[in-house]
Amino acid sequence: MKNKIVGDMPPEEFRKSGHELIDWIADYLINIEEYPVLPNTKPGELKKRFPKNPPENGESVEEILSDIDRKIIPGVTHWNHPKFMAYFNSTSSGPGILAELLTAALNQNGMNWKSSPIAAEMEEVTLDWLRQMLDLPENFWGIIYDTASISSLHAIASAKTQVEHERKDKNLLNKLCFYFSEQAHSSIEKDALFLGIKKEHIRKIKVNKDFKMIPEVLRNQISKDIENNLIPFCVVATVGTTSTTSVDSVSKIAKICSEKNIWLHIDAAHAGIAAIVPEMRFILNGVEHADSIVVNPHKWLFMPIDISVYYTTKPNILKRTFSLIPEYLKTEQDNSAINYMDYGIQLGRRFRSLKLWFVIRYFGVKGLRSIIREHIRVGKLFEELVSNNPQFELLAPVPFSTVCFRAVPNRVISEAQLNELNERLMNEVNRTGKVFLSHTRLYNKFIIRLVVSGIRTKEEHMLEVWALLQKTLSKLIGNEY
Amino acid sequence: MKNKIVGDMPPEEFRKSGHELIDWIADYLINIEEYPVLPNTKPGELKKRFPKNPPENGESVEEILSDIDRKIIPGVTHWNHPKFMAYFNSTSSGPGILAELLTAALNQNGMNWKSSPIAAEMEEVTLDWLRQMLDLPENFWGIIYDTASISSLHAIASAKTQVEHERKDKNLLNKLCFYFSEQAHSSIEKDALFLGIKKEHIRKIKVNKDFKMIPEVLRNQISKDIENNLIPFCVVATVGTTSTTSVDSVSKIAKICSEKNIWLHIDAAHAGIAAIVPEMRFILNGVEHADSIVVNPHKWLFMPIDISVYYTTKPNILKRTFSLIPEYLKTEQDNSAINYMDYGIQLGRRFRSLKLWFVIRYFGVKGLRSIIREHIRVGKLFEELVSNNPQFELLAPVPFSTVCFRAVPNRVISEAQLNELNERLMNEVNRTGKVFLSHTRLYNKFIIRLVVSGIRTKEEHMLEVWALLQKTLSKLIGNEY
Repeated sequence: MKNKIVGDMPPEEFRKSGHELIDWIADYLINIEEYPVLPNTKPGELKKRFPKNPPENGESVEEILSDIDRKIIPGVTHWNHPKFMAYFNSTSSGPGILAELLTAALNQNGMNWKSSPIAAEMEEVTLDWLRQMLDLPENFWGIIYDTASISSLHAIASAKTQVEHERKDKNLLNKLCFYFSEQAHSSIEKDALFLGIKKEHIRKIKVNKDFKMIPEVLRNQISKDIENNLIPFCVVATVGTTSTTSVDSVSKIAKICSEKNIWLHIDAAHAGIAAIVPEMRFILNGVEHADSIVVNPHKWLFMPIDISVYYTTKPNILKRTFSLIPEYLKTEQDNSAINYMDYGIQLGRRFRSLKLWFVIRYFGVKGLRSIIREHIRVGKLFEELVSNNPQFELLAPVPFSTVCFRAVPNRVISEAQLNELNERLMNEVNRTGKVFLSHTRLYNKFIIRLVVSGIRTKEEHMLEVWALLQKTLSKLIGNEY
Repeated sequence: MKNKIVGDMPPEEFRKSGHELIDWIADYLINIEEYPVLPNTKPGELKKRFPKNPPENGESVEEILSDIDRKIIPGVTHWNHPKFMAYFNSTSSGPGILAELLTAALNQNGMNWKSSPIAAEMEEVTLDWLRQMLDLPENFWGIIYDTASISSLHAIASAKTQVEHERKDKNLLNKLCFYFSEQAHSSIEKDALFLGIKKEHIRKIKVNKDFKMIPEVLRNQISKDIENNLIPFCVVATVGTTSTTSVDSVSKIAKICSEKNIWLHIDAAHAGIAAIVPEMRFILNGVEHADSIVVNPHKWLFMPIDISVYYTTKPNILKRTFSLIPEYLKTEQDNSAINYMDYGIQLGRRFRSLKLWFVIRYFGVKGLRSIIREHIRVGKLFEELVSNNPQFELLAPVPFSTVCFRAVPNRVISEAQLNELNERLMNEVNRTGKVFLSHTRLYNKFIIRLVVSGIRTKEEHMLEVWALLQKTLSKLIGNEY
């Protein structure tokens, strides 16, 4: 035992396997369109391919790598596929993948400055770059978290800390009222419940016909709550809701929040990135009056999951909420550097800013703008195709590149039949493996969503999907409707 | 614009750069000992090397990669260095790095089964492997989170949900009492405060001379709280505390928790991994009576940060706490597959189980056991060296491979001088760049910690550090003490 060699894989073996894996990935990216976007598998089928017990003896790395094609790929939903048009995309660009490789190799844990000076300072540098790209005021201080759920959780927790500081009230939590539109993302409500906000004090504010929060309804609800001795403490405005990418009026909502001294958080996880394009920057008008905002570079800035960026004008409240430094984490630099662990619930922190650094440098601001502009152009083109075809119907405005639509065949059929038809239409096109579309439901209508925001997605892909939708619809109508 | 080519880095460019980066990493791993463990830099120096503004135009990938040596490395704390003996290690093994590369390339977002069937099913498979390796009962259900802070947050939130379900009391939160030892990790207290547990109801239970929670003190405190109409709802026992790796008696604490119907969570983030070695499994004795446990493969199982594994016997409570499924995330498989998003605060989920799969397969269970056994052997050897040298003093038992010690020169000096001497000793050895040790403080004593848990750490490295400590101490004593 004493003399047995234990340690890592020999570096030369790593080199050889690393080259093999890089070649595999390059080929994967070249052939990405050959794969079915959604895998053809049923729950429980994949796990049968794996042994029930862990291997006692080590296996060769060749064996592991050869299983990628045999055991992994048959279960992969190809988020990198140009016709992955479901949810909101997250696509891995080449430089994003390289950055993650380096992140894994250097394995920095940026708890405090000392544990990784470069992670700390590069986070400052790249978040200031992104702040400039988004044209946020200089007093917006940034930090990287893993997901938008966690970023917004920190926003709501900060709002809570702020009001706790202002009002000493043992029963405060039972009075706090929280506001967002009925179109806001489910993570917002989940976060609030998690922090102990009472379900009966969560206000889902009505939206107008364009799915934007109605500021007057918000104002009235807040007034009513105050009259009832409740305490409004946080409003979330959404820039790019998940169903339709509608944009709440940040300016109008900010005005109400300022008057009432309420924390305003902006959930711009997907669509906020579009603000790097100057002619789209208006979507953030009013942000200068907000307290915080989240944008996710892993959604529309071509970085592998996960990286969510949170900006706040009140980092000290974040620090007041989370800072608690035990002796074993104290360092000589605690007063001269940023220890990001003091600003969040997570102690361990991956070196995520490398992705921002690689991707922004490789494409340049101009390059990133071009890609997003092109997505918006292709999205609008699809909107036009839908609008001009009497067999289809547009169901929401298209502020970015997400289009909500459904099929409406010439023959009059009931709403229930329409829903059934559209659900079948979506499932049928998805089953071909040629595209992945997802859905939402608004006013009891089953709505298909098509999202153009993958880095490999071009006009031709959208046109292929459009042809497939028409063809499949004809078949369905011919057969049954 | 319309015809401008926008899209990703061409795959052949990715291939070329990927090969370069793999070579860079292989060389880095070969030469890791040539780097100073701690970089020689002061806060603010690194960021000056980066432009203040983001680049307008894209740069070549060669330019970016060439900056790794020039701008990144000078700020890296080398967590992979065999003489990184601070905090608790996290080291990237070769197979762990390869797994992360594949994770980034496939870019699975395992929100629900459909969004990545393989991520869902491989999480099931590999967590069952790890469960078997740790010899946890079959009713322990696992899920991967990013960090131990988040795993324990889910444990405490579950405990809260359980008690909320049992007692309908509007004022419940103001009565909940939470227990852990005064040696527990700071993240535990941070989590509890975050969830709204009152600071005055957080009970830090006294430890004995071996830094283990005293069960009788816990029992008495719980009884006292119940008498005062407060509601004990959660106890955290630590297996491997951060300062000294002391192990709370899980069996005795579990007995108290069972009697009083209190959720028992075990924080075994670092040391729990040692339980894969059969002769060390006793550290988890009693775990079968616990409600949940966290272990971090990124700490002592040689996977790049981040991967934290949480097991609970009550996944339904987790689901009750977190499940909230909006229409746009509903799928046909919701009743036949696990949607991990329903069991946590984070919606987006990286494909982290790939790391478990690569690393367990490459080393095999036997290989992983050998490495951990060797770490413990080297740790004990250092303990002996310290114990047998009259100029040093051991300050805590060594259950694993973390040694707490300080220098005690022959000449009698005050406790204050001893603290100053040891702080200087640690800083001096760290300044050489040859090692990184960190400290803790117990009973007002400045204590140096030496941790042997990096995959590249061998006996020879420990011996080098021991020689350096002795030499530096002689110099300091000769000069001033």
